Amino acid sequence: MARKIGIIGMGNVGAAVAHGAIAQGLADSYVFIDINDKKAEADAQDFKDAMANLPSYAKIVVNDYAALEDADVIISSLGNIQLQHNAGEDRFAEFPFTREAVYHVSQELKKLDFKGVLVVISNPVDAVSALYQKFTGWPKERVIGTGTLLDTSRMKAAVADDLNVNPKSVSGYNLGEHGNSQFTAWSQVKVKGQDITALTSQEERQALFMASMKGGHKVFYGKGYTSYGIASAALRLAAIVLSDGLEEVAVSSYQEAYQTYLGYPVILGRQGVAAPVHLSLTAEENHLLEESATLIRNRVEESFAYLNNKYSNTNE
Amino acid sequence: MARKIGIIGMGNVGAAVAHGAIAQGLADSYVFIDINDKKAEADAQDFKDAMANLPSYAKIVVNDYAALEDADVIISSLGNIQLQHNAGEDRFAEFPFTREAVYHVSQELKKLDFKGVLVVISNPVDAVSALYQKFTGWPKERVIGTGTLLDTSRMKAAVADDLNVNPKSVSGYNLGEHGNSQFTAWSQVKVKGQDITALTSQEERQALFMASMKGGHKVFYGKGYTSYGIASAALRLAAIVLSDGLEEVAVSSYQEAYQTYLGYPVILGRQGVAAPVHLSLTAEENHLLEESATLIRNRVEESFAYLNNKYSNTNE
Amino acid sequence: MARKIGIIGMGNVGAAVAHGAIAQGLADSYVFIDINDKKAEADAQDFKDAMANLPSYAKIVVNDYAALEDADVIISSLGNIQLQHNAGEDRFAEFPFTREAVYHVSQELKKLDFKGVLVVISNPVDAVSALYQKFTGWPKERVIGTGTLLDTSRMKAAVADDLNVNPKSVSGYNLGEHGNSQFTAWSQVKVKGQDITALTSQEERQALFMASMKGGHKVFYGKGYTSYGIASAALRLAAIVLSDGLEEVAVSSYQEAYQTYLGYPVILGRQGVAAPVHLSLTAEENHLLEESATLIRNRVEESFAYLNNKYSNTNE
Amino acid sequence: MARKIGIIGMGNVGAAVAHGAIAQGLADSYVFIDINDKKAEADAQDFKDAMANLPSYAKIVVNDYAALEDADVIISSLGNIQLQHNAGEDRFAEFPFTREAVYHVSQELKKLDFKGVLVVISNPVDAVSALYQKFTGWPKERVIGTGTLLDTSRMKAAVADDLNVNPKSVSGYNLGEHGNSQFTAWSQVKVKGQDITALTSQEERQALFMASMKGGHKVFYGKGYTSYGIASAALRLAAIVLSDGLEEVAVSSYQEAYQTYLGYPVILGRQGVAAPVHLSLTAEENHLLEESATLIRNRVEESFAYLNNKYSNTNE
Repeated sequence: MARKIGIIGMGNVGAAVAHGAIAQGLADSYVFIDINDKKAEADAQDFKDAMANLPSYAKIVVNDYAALEDADVIISSLGNIQLQHNAGEDRFAEFPFTREAVYHVSQELKKLDFKGVLVVISNPVDAVSALYQKFTGWPKERVIGTGTLLDTSRMKAAVADDLNVNPKSVSGYNLGEHGNSQFTAWSQVKVKGQDITALTSQEERQALFMASMKGGHKVFYGKGYTSYGIASAALRLAAIVLSDGLEEVAVSSYQEAYQTYLGYPVILGRQGVAAPVHLSLTAEENHLLEESATLIRNRVEESFAYLNNKYSNTNE
Repeated sequence: MARKIGIIGMGNVGAAVAHGAIAQGLADSYVFIDINDKKAEADAQDFKDAMANLPSYAKIVVNDYAALEDADVIISSLGNIQLQHNAGEDRFAEFPFTREAVYHVSQELKKLDFKGVLVVISNPVDAVSALYQKFTGWPKERVIGTGTLLDTSRMKAAVADDLNVNPKSVSGYNLGEHGNSQFTAWSQVKVKGQDITALTSQEERQALFMASMKGGHKVFYGKGYTSYGIASAALRLAAIVLSDGLEEVAVSSYQEAYQTYLGYPVILGRQGVAAPVHLSLTAEENHLLEESATLIRNRVEESFAYLNNKYSNTNE
Repeated sequence: MARKIGIIGMGNVGAAVAHGAIAQGLADSYVFIDINDKKAEADAQDFKDAMANLPSYAKIVVNDYAALEDADVIISSLGNIQLQHNAGEDRFAEFPFTREAVYHVSQELKKLDFKGVLVVISNPVDAVSALYQKFTGWPKERVIGTGTLLDTSRMKAAVADDLNVNPKSVSGYNLGEHGNSQFTAWSQVKVKGQDITALTSQEERQALFMASMKGGHKVFYGKGYTSYGIASAALRLAAIVLSDGLEEVAVSSYQEAYQTYLGYPVILGRQGVAAPVHLSLTAEENHLLEESATLIRNRVEESFAYLNNKYSNTNE
Repeated sequence: MARKIGIIGMGNVGAAVAHGAIAQGLADSYVFIDINDKKAEADAQDFKDAMANLPSYAKIVVNDYAALEDADVIISSLGNIQLQHNAGEDRFAEFPFTREAVYHVSQELKKLDFKGVLVVISNPVDAVSALYQKFTGWPKERVIGTGTLLDTSRMKAAVADDLNVNPKSVSGYNLGEHGNSQFTAWSQVKVKGQDITALTSQEERQALFMASMKGGHKVFYGKGYTSYGIASAALRLAAIVLSDGLEEVAVSSYQEAYQTYLGYPVILGRQGVAAPVHLSLTAEENHLLEESATLIRNRVEESFAYLNNKYSNTNE
């Protein structure tokens, strides 16, 4: 019945999500939502001007929340990247902005009889995913975030560069917060048939981890924002949902064991999280994951209490 | 032997060209050139961070002119969009900047034993294409510009919107300067099996023409630049060149009859312009094309004289 | 809500349709229907064995008519190519077989609350499309055939080969029966900006027409059937329907003026035929079209009477 | 400089390779080689008839060995599937036919200054890859076979089906001969974050292995041959070569340690095998691999001696 993707927030990231999707012919129709009506309309027109020269065709509507109802995937890319400048590299710097935005957007979303999956990019992504789930009341398995998928990609790119292989030929994950408390679960990383621990020193792995966590900084300081890496991560998730792909992929998902959203692999399909994945981590990795989970959980609780208090008629 | 695309100028347009190409898996390797080394490196890193989540794979090198030698297509997207703000909507406002840049870039390009096709986006695109050809000394058929391909796409989008068909199902062209002296050759436009003149009034066609010529303004004023429309036009040309597609497509090409570069359809293939196309225009359309050609020719001659004078050792 | 394609008849053509679609990632799920259960299951398994090495993912179910209900497109490729051998090159040789098959398949299809478009490949395609429409009772605009789309492609390939351009850069159509009474409407064919009548002699055009009508014979006698050309024609129609593309394309569609299905361009979208196209044909072309229409109409009436008589409880 | 693929042997498999590649737009030009000139010409024409309806464009030449010289990839799909019928399920049944064909084809190939990669599908693929390498004299790293890539895909499909995940989310390999002496290296198979040995009983794994090794039989007996699975395996290898992808993938490659070609993962790129992969197998798996290698090595030596004797002027 056609593929439909909604994008909420047409800044650098949302526009890159739209461009990537349209260039690949991923969906048949799009809904762009942005408080800056002129920007969203400008992007829509720019894509319409491209249609005669693109291999595939798609329709675009702008700022029509009702049109999101039968979307397969809604991607939240709203944010305020200005708040990240001089922010000491903590993605929570955007939270005072995004949590308010998420509250208001959710009031619109929860009116919809939405059957698809909400993929959150907005930072701090783990906490924002949690708030979206609470405010929309949608099932936890159908609200996910890009989480550490991008960090995982950066880890794979760094390892791949080091060992001269394709990033896709590196297995493993960055886990936990899409932020400073994350870590690479080296026990899970294999390349060229070997555990990476057999191929590299601890020092080398620490450098690779830093490249994965701080890899976005080179991009951020070079152009003022990051876009293509995160957009492609979100679009990969969208493609899996659209085809009910049941791929194992690290996303920010609600993990019962940690009572919070955090970056951890799941089996993803048309209904969102279709099945859990259980990694056999080392004791140290488990400890790091617990710490990262606690950090996210506290921030979410704090923000939820704040917003709940501010907007008395919150749904819970 | 693999497909390689070079992009000179990684601003909004060049980056959109790269993103569109990489998302589509159009080439196997890319060369990004920009005087802002950090921006070009940031984009390259951002794409590398995307590779683990993209269907296809590609390599990227940055600021290495020598790496352009075996490219199939080089796309020039250098420019200074700031100069267009408050410019009275004349793309020649960028010319003082771009003609200098083109001169200097050409000094590097002409060192190469380049066998591919140079596709110029930089504005004013007809004049800039002419200068590139003169300064590189490359054969005229292998230096082309996007010309009125974007305006043609906008005309098709406007007609398509009006008559509820796909833009690709509208035939015909905007001709002449990619600028204010262009026109839609309505004698060539067919839709739903009919000449558009049988389906619309002259007034309606004038409105459609204005939408095609000024269509970018809504985009420009909405986001400060245009990118996806022009990028997809350039990438369509690149795709035709890569596959030796021999498609009929409006580009800025050197037209012997007018002694200048201007937007007019040609048959495009691996060697650039493979064969001419001859439209049977009305007398009025021929007159408009002549006028547009004269305008471009004068601007090119003036600029060439200026630059020739400024840089005594110019190649001619 | 995902893209679904059903294919009825997994012979050489149906299998090529499935392969082309799966290779391109056109849909998210497929339904294969064939009276030879083992062949359909074998193809399904063969595609499943391919999934780990394909860029995209899709699900396949076999011989489940109910699963067709929410398909976007159903493609009928049933037939019996053996009947074409020694058939004197008349596609009606298959009709005694296909009309029975269509009757029985339609009894299954009409049970479904189908909202998509039925695309008929089965020969003689114009007559078979008419029977499908009658027996299913589905709206005429949502039952179409590939008609002269393949012949048109062959005409374009022949002209393109002659004039050294891309087939897509040749406009125009073969019209009427997908069979011996068809003709190329040369008044509509343009290439390199010119009417083809200005570029070729009548003799040359006759040779090009024969190449378009008999072009399949080289294929048929070389491998015993044709598959890729017709499969790509059907998949282009499917892609247009899936994206509500509203492209102008020649299909076998019910033409009120001729009271029959025949090959003629229409505007095609998600609901099937979205709008008519009116070609300004020459008097001779109109005469040929009338003759071709009469031939199809008579065959359809005859077959419908025969089947109606045979199966007393037919729906009308 | 454009992507070119040659296909030697246009039977069911070679034609499926061509169709998959053309449908995906994988290359810009193709060379079809077959002793049955009419079949190869028929396929080429059938694809030409498809071009007007395909998203991408490509050129095809038929039976011109010289045109293979600048190919990026040559795929050998020659064979005689009739010899497999009633063959007791041993792929060596085709060897008397293919070894002769390989000898003669190699006489043509070795005249070429070929810089690409030869990907062998022809069965028995490990032995045939070895003969091609010997008779052409091309470097071992640039002659590879599809080996156990298809069996690996079948294993992944079987495991995926069992555990309800995407086949791509199953890691691991079938190793050794693409034939009856192969085995699944269960020590390498992970799914849902776990070693498969923790999720399944030995009995279940044996059933999964049989499904992977005998998975083709259902296809073979259902339609008389297998095509889409093997074609997609070959095309995945071709895509990796074209983009210098450096992916880890199981192919039939010359393994120094075993002095023979056999199915084992390598890092594959533009120059063929770019780097080795070292799996940490169990003692039992190492034993099975040794046995499989011995079987292949013996067959290759025997055949090489036979052919060397028959054709006195063989190159070595």
